Amino acid sequence: MHLTQFSDYGLRLVLYLACHPERVISVDEVSRAYGISRHHLVKVVQVLTDLGVVEAQRGRGGGMRLAKRPSEINVGWLIRQTEPHMNLVECFDPETNTCPIAPACGLKGALVRAQQAFLGVLDQYTLEDFRPHREQLVRLLEESLRRASGAGA
Amino acid sequence: MHLTQFSDYGLRLVLYLACHPERVISVDEVSRAYGISRHHLVKVVQVLTDLGVVEAQRGRGGGMRLAKRPSEINVGWLIRQTEPHMNLVECFDPETNTCPIAPACGLKGALVRAQQAFLGVLDQYTLEDFRPHREQLVRLLEESLRRASGAGA
Repeated sequence: MHLTQFSDYGLRLVLYLACHPERVISVDEVSRAYGISRHHLVKVVQVLTDLGVVEAQRGRGGGMRLAKRPSEINVGWLIRQTEPHMNLVECFDPETNTCPIAPACGLKGALVRAQQAFLGVLDQYTLEDFRPHREQLVRLLEESLRRASGAGA
Repeated sequence: MHLTQFSDYGLRLVLYLACHPERVISVDEVSRAYGISRHHLVKVVQVLTDLGVVEAQRGRGGGMRLAKRPSEINVGWLIRQTEPHMNLVECFDPETNTCPIAPACGLKGALVRAQQAFLGVLDQYTLEDFRPHREQLVRLLEESLRRASGAGA
């Protein structure tokens, strides 16, 4: 049971931006701070830009920032957008399901309720809820950037 | 967000056996009824046998049956056993985590609570809860077996 790396990186990205509201941030910086692939991160930025969560500022001194207030970015909503699908098991997608007992199977109902409970918890959080630890987060990210620079030097 | 095919097949297998308490069942029969790989199913049977959920009866007329009463087989417990891991995102495993903000990140806490809610719902179910639809399930499985035999003839 796991979320995709895409969702993981999406969450890390928006948290980074929420922790640095005072300036625009480059993809390179986020990539180095987390030690994650710039290539994968670019794709995440594209999707989050299309979703209206991130806005890009092009050109010299360009970068990105959140396009909404942290309190307007809901975690449950974000994960529903970044996961490729929410089909917990095959029968969740009637278009492709091959399981013959789907019409009478109570297991699907139990799994649907479990998934609703999962998303219901995440629906209670926005990015604003994680900002109380902002100073500590920024410090950890800066330390990580320094280590990355040291390693690259 | 999805469970592995292994868990999916595990659930299908135990439900099949719970629907047919009166006789031993062959892997072939379950494979044909659901239209799923016999090869994959054999691995599922091995793990569920090791877990003490399924018991095999070898030899002529052999097959398998549940090793416990349906009311003793909890769905949340079963999924915890059949999923290769419950690491929703990278930081769930401190051994392999590379994310530098883990010590201060509230997102992990939110994801842990969401996963607990997910499993908490499934912990409320045992296989016994799905037996009220047994007749209908058996009919659907028998129809599927007939179709499979027809296609193979």
